[in-house]
Amino acid sequence: MGEVIPHQEVAERIERFQKVLSDSQIDAAIVIQNADLFYFSGTVQRGYLMVPASGEPVFAATGDIERIRRESPLENIHPIEGIRELASIASQALGKLEGSAIGVEEDVIPVALYKRLKSLFHRSQLKDVSGIIRSLRMIKSPYEISLIKESAKIFPEVMAGLPEVLRPGITEVALESELIRMGRKRSHFGPLRVRAFNQEVYYGHVISGPRAAAPSYLMSPTGGLGPCPAFGQGASFHPIEPHSAIIIDLCFGIHGYLSDQTRTAAIGSLPSELEKAYETLLALKAKIVDMLRPGVICATIYEKALDLSKETGLSPNFMGYGPRKASFVGHGIGLEIDEWPVIGKGFNTPLKPGMVIALEPKLTFPGVGVIGLEDNYLITETEAEKLNPLDEKVTVVPL
Amino acid sequence: MGEVIPHQEVAERIERFQKVLSDSQIDAAIVIQNADLFYFSGTVQRGYLMVPASGEPVFAATGDIERIRRESPLENIHPIEGIRELASIASQALGKLEGSAIGVEEDVIPVALYKRLKSLFHRSQLKDVSGIIRSLRMIKSPYEISLIKESAKIFPEVMAGLPEVLRPGITEVALESELIRMGRKRSHFGPLRVRAFNQEVYYGHVISGPRAAAPSYLMSPTGGLGPCPAFGQGASFHPIEPHSAIIIDLCFGIHGYLSDQTRTAAIGSLPSELEKAYETLLALKAKIVDMLRPGVICATIYEKALDLSKETGLSPNFMGYGPRKASFVGHGIGLEIDEWPVIGKGFNTPLKPGMVIALEPKLTFPGVGVIGLEDNYLITETEAEKLNPLDEKVTVVPL
Repeated sequence: MGEVIPHQEVAERIERFQKVLSDSQIDAAIVIQNADLFYFSGTVQRGYLMVPASGEPVFAATGDIERIRRESPLENIHPIEGIRELASIASQALGKLEGSAIGVEEDVIPVALYKRLKSLFHRSQLKDVSGIIRSLRMIKSPYEISLIKESAKIFPEVMAGLPEVLRPGITEVALESELIRMGRKRSHFGPLRVRAFNQEVYYGHVISGPRAAAPSYLMSPTGGLGPCPAFGQGASFHPIEPHSAIIIDLCFGIHGYLSDQTRTAAIGSLPSELEKAYETLLALKAKIVDMLRPGVICATIYEKALDLSKETGLSPNFMGYGPRKASFVGHGIGLEIDEWPVIGKGFNTPLKPGMVIALEPKLTFPGVGVIGLEDNYLITETEAEKLNPLDEKVTVVPL
Repeated sequence: MGEVIPHQEVAERIERFQKVLSDSQIDAAIVIQNADLFYFSGTVQRGYLMVPASGEPVFAATGDIERIRRESPLENIHPIEGIRELASIASQALGKLEGSAIGVEEDVIPVALYKRLKSLFHRSQLKDVSGIIRSLRMIKSPYEISLIKESAKIFPEVMAGLPEVLRPGITEVALESELIRMGRKRSHFGPLRVRAFNQEVYYGHVISGPRAAAPSYLMSPTGGLGPCPAFGQGASFHPIEPHSAIIIDLCFGIHGYLSDQTRTAAIGSLPSELEKAYETLLALKAKIVDMLRPGVICATIYEKALDLSKETGLSPNFMGYGPRKASFVGHGIGLEIDEWPVIGKGFNTPLKPGMVIALEPKLTFPGVGVIGLEDNYLITETEAEKLNPLDEKVTVVPL
């Protein structure tokens, strides 16, 4: 668990980054956000990673220098007093700052920090490199894939223990806590990373019955009441009713790398209309999986999935109901839960080998509930390899 | 738990906000970040809250309109298709946009979102209102205080159950999961909100022995190894050793409002040097509590606490050790764990009635461990009222 990232892994990531920086006429990037910082350096202890388009990157450390040196295989780790020293470090790395282009992660860093950087780099132009970084991180290395595969084993093990904890009268929150505790016993690191601002999903959703069909502030096909209006998504303090659909959508991870899986469960039985719909959904899912091949455009898969849902007559229920439908059917996973690519509207990128997708077809029935499943797939040279060893059955525990 | 915020509460918050906006020559503010949005509207379902310096605020809703209307007592809740409609809403509210000053939360909103707002409001000037909002939120209403008081009961109840779960061989992560599960059974809502970028503390720290003394990327006197370098803070997968100091620093909350408490525990006994130091720390803490009175400058309390620590001979150990010491001894709590005021360096604001402070004196002994405690105080007209019903004893369970 305390594993340190291999030197070669970081070296290759930096090399790929430098090539794109160079192609994009960006002289250097300053990496700050934790997921990105960990990806390129192997540590999240405090600091700024300066990656020039060519030459050695510099980790300007404001955190514990010994710890950073233990965790990061980077060569140039220099203690600094504070952010104001970044300009002179960049100046040394680039020869001069005048007229240079400096990349920053504009999708995540706050305005106040950006303004500080702008004043420090007043002789340079700041450029957004978040798209570059997200594109690089989209393609997983064999090392990353092995960690995601390890992570993908946790959910099936937790689901195997579900009948021990799912009992009439248990609340959504209590069931969620039990399942998370079981995951952490199996080395799950804890609350996950989500890149999008204000999304605040830290484990996933354990929600049931009509409450699951309530849209929330998470951009997802499931919503949930949440514990209170202050956190209006996911598990609530309501007891789970017998004969209602329970959505168990949880992320577990190892060494920062996530798996994101969903299964449907019920106490007693599913409502019969949902039982039938689940069979339809499985057939639809098989057809979507068949499209997960290198070269196929992500948005096309999504559009075709919408078309397929029309053929089943369940189009209004597919991926949410009404004006708040999710506009995707799958998403990349890795260090963050909302990685690229998105198998969704407008994402006109072809699938490529090394991408890892959480495919999550779901059907929402307002006033009744949500059913669905979510599996993780590695795009290989020829097809999609399922990473999570779990069958598609609904778990039904006795009343 | 599903309690909806009282109409009067939101009305008073908006009124106070409008007064400061008006005094600061800001024509309107756009509130987006979840904690702020909840504070001023009662919901976090997706949308933008436009608060003009005078007149009715408008909640421009991109999320589920029915849900927002149920949760928020605001009158003007209008569905919009997307952010691009904000400019026309502001224009209607203000008469004209030309030359207006529009406030945004520059400490938290990402650059990409800010640039979008800048282009939508190209005829206006954007101003930072994060300081204004944090200053307003610093003073809690009786309603907020009652919720924090409710939250403050959870930790003592969880600590009462500690002897049932703290056993030789248990890992830090397993102990943390057990305590969190116990908190959630007592209505704790789940992972908390932290305002500062990249801080990623969601429950607190359950850490032990020399590992607790390791500084981490969290700006705090305790660090911890964390589960892996990707999340290098807090509980690790190491078993808790007998005769080592265990720091249990956990936040529990109700309806979004947090309490943040710490106690020290041990299996068998504390190392004798730490036992003695704990007595010294209690005496020091009493002197700091005595300074928590309206009118006293926060930075002065901190400086005096440093002076007092020198008199005890434990100054090198106070609030961390070496170059990575925390520069505070307490902080505000409420909807976020890192609220104002900070009882720390450079925070030259006087204490005022209605502030709620988590005071957390701690002593770090490198290679040995950390001891400390943390209690929550409401500043009243005359003194500091302790909100958490918990004595200061170290919990020692048998070996």
